[in-house]
Amino acid sequence: MPIPPCAPDRVRRVACIGAGVIGGGWVAHFLARGYDVTAWDPAPDAETKLRRLVDAAWPALEQIGLAEGASPDRLTLAATLEEAVADAEFVQESAPEKLELKRSLLAQLDAAAPAGVVIASSTSGYPMTDMQTEATDPGRLLVGHPFNPPYLIPLVEVAGGEKTDPAAVEWASAFYKAAAKSVITMDRELPGFIANRLQEALWREALHMVANGEATVKDIDDSITEGPGLRWAFMGPCLTFALAGGDGGMGHMLDHFGPSLKSPWTRLEAPELDDSLRTAMVDGCDEAAAGRSIAQLVAERDQGVINVLRATGRLPEQRNEGGDK
Amino acid sequence: MPIPPCAPDRVRRVACIGAGVIGGGWVAHFLARGYDVTAWDPAPDAETKLRRLVDAAWPALEQIGLAEGASPDRLTLAATLEEAVADAEFVQESAPEKLELKRSLLAQLDAAAPAGVVIASSTSGYPMTDMQTEATDPGRLLVGHPFNPPYLIPLVEVAGGEKTDPAAVEWASAFYKAAAKSVITMDRELPGFIANRLQEALWREALHMVANGEATVKDIDDSITEGPGLRWAFMGPCLTFALAGGDGGMGHMLDHFGPSLKSPWTRLEAPELDDSLRTAMVDGCDEAAAGRSIAQLVAERDQGVINVLRATGRLPEQRNEGGDK
Repeated sequence: MPIPPCAPDRVRRVACIGAGVIGGGWVAHFLARGYDVTAWDPAPDAETKLRRLVDAAWPALEQIGLAEGASPDRLTLAATLEEAVADAEFVQESAPEKLELKRSLLAQLDAAAPAGVVIASSTSGYPMTDMQTEATDPGRLLVGHPFNPPYLIPLVEVAGGEKTDPAAVEWASAFYKAAAKSVITMDRELPGFIANRLQEALWREALHMVANGEATVKDIDDSITEGPGLRWAFMGPCLTFALAGGDGGMGHMLDHFGPSLKSPWTRLEAPELDDSLRTAMVDGCDEAAAGRSIAQLVAERDQGVINVLRATGRLPEQRNEGGDK
Repeated sequence: MPIPPCAPDRVRRVACIGAGVIGGGWVAHFLARGYDVTAWDPAPDAETKLRRLVDAAWPALEQIGLAEGASPDRLTLAATLEEAVADAEFVQESAPEKLELKRSLLAQLDAAAPAGVVIASSTSGYPMTDMQTEATDPGRLLVGHPFNPPYLIPLVEVAGGEKTDPAAVEWASAFYKAAAKSVITMDRELPGFIANRLQEALWREALHMVANGEATVKDIDDSITEGPGLRWAFMGPCLTFALAGGDGGMGHMLDHFGPSLKSPWTRLEAPELDDSLRTAMVDGCDEAAAGRSIAQLVAERDQGVINVLRATGRLPEQRNEGGDK
């Protein structure tokens, strides 16, 4: 693949292909960050819906703070795919999740986009290796997987396929960072990437529970928002569980709760908790702690939970309702 | 079982058995809500550790707002289990997760506690049916499963065993609510209850990924805190996913992403997405939406994410770093 025509932090013009919930969310994000955005979507009412989505998102984006010169007026709807990408310095594809569609669409985009311009797919789970089969220059095709809504949730997972040029992966990661996203660059293709594998495991367990009458939709949602979800907004599942180990951290937690991995607490079989996995988890948590003691982490977690409780309206001004005192 | 000796909202004296991370967290919670708390733990340094935990938690609890008269001075350490529960109006057991230990401890507590007083176990996953086998009055034994730290995370899952009196389950649910907890009362025993089944599925997938070198601890934690975790602090996984379906909500989401359930996005096999499950999910989300339109829910989600981003320090005052505008 030729060298991308501009540096990741010099991009001004982005093309968004597909303008549904995710594609439209990307449009809103790039507009708010001050880019010129050209969008294309074959649906007859695409423009109306897209402008409505951007208008609905704009007040939120104003709250966050717009980039200088950012405006919904910098959105152009293109009549054709070719027109949409003709001047683009980056292309984000967010078509429906159909492998054949993605394959041919990416080949069309590759044929139409200026040489060297990186083309990212928002796919929720297809590996790029399976999608880049029909393109002439597969080296510039990669996955840039966002979360809904892309204009507010920072995460983008970046992963190339077998034929993707590592330089394109590096360029895209730098571009997304410049566009105010939080990037995880993967060194391999993994179905569902990382966050979706995690939330999909949770989601499948939830579906099983509803299917078997073990819990209602409300139980499931409440169990997360009133429980682990309050911690996960700022501290991930690994570091959170490390704090369940008291002063012993992740090591003690694994030794104490390790036997539970044999229990049928979910339909997902656990891996063998051997020395190598134990070490990887303990070392990973030590690294994440970056010198902070367990006591410091506990204090940070506590303040974080309080901040989230307050931010989500769950700390009334007066809270003296406990007991009958 | 005799009728509990006092109404759930008239409880003044609570006994906490086991004073580790969870037991100590319960102590801090009950103290902050204005109860007299008697604790017992056989470890030689239990009192020192417990008072340190309470002292460390207290500033957080002051921020939330203490119940009238609440004070760390209302904590008493008992010399024996019998002394700890002698005057208790409610008993919370938080011993290590060992089935035999739990069985004999609950039998001892049942023998020592005043007639009718409800005894709850903090167990992370044992069904009460398996733990109440040695007690004389198993009717008053039930699970009251908290989340770490119990003094900040609202959720408690309440579930009885086969021999538990439904009146005890009802009483405990009302008591926890009076003690400012958020309660899910389960109508059956399910290994891991609800929230732990969900987070355990996610956790096991995470362990598999680390074991196979597919992701690091940091990747996993970042993928949640920068992604789905921001939504789960205030909107559960079901309602969140409904919004991925655009105007079509959960129904459209299931039709669109349903085929992904066949993909290897996690090691957990998905259930069959038949009409009955589809209907249960759609109806459950409609019920959760309680008349709010998709557009209203999207606006609420957006404001929620912004509030959480701000509360967790991820919205700098100036955010004009996007692109090179």
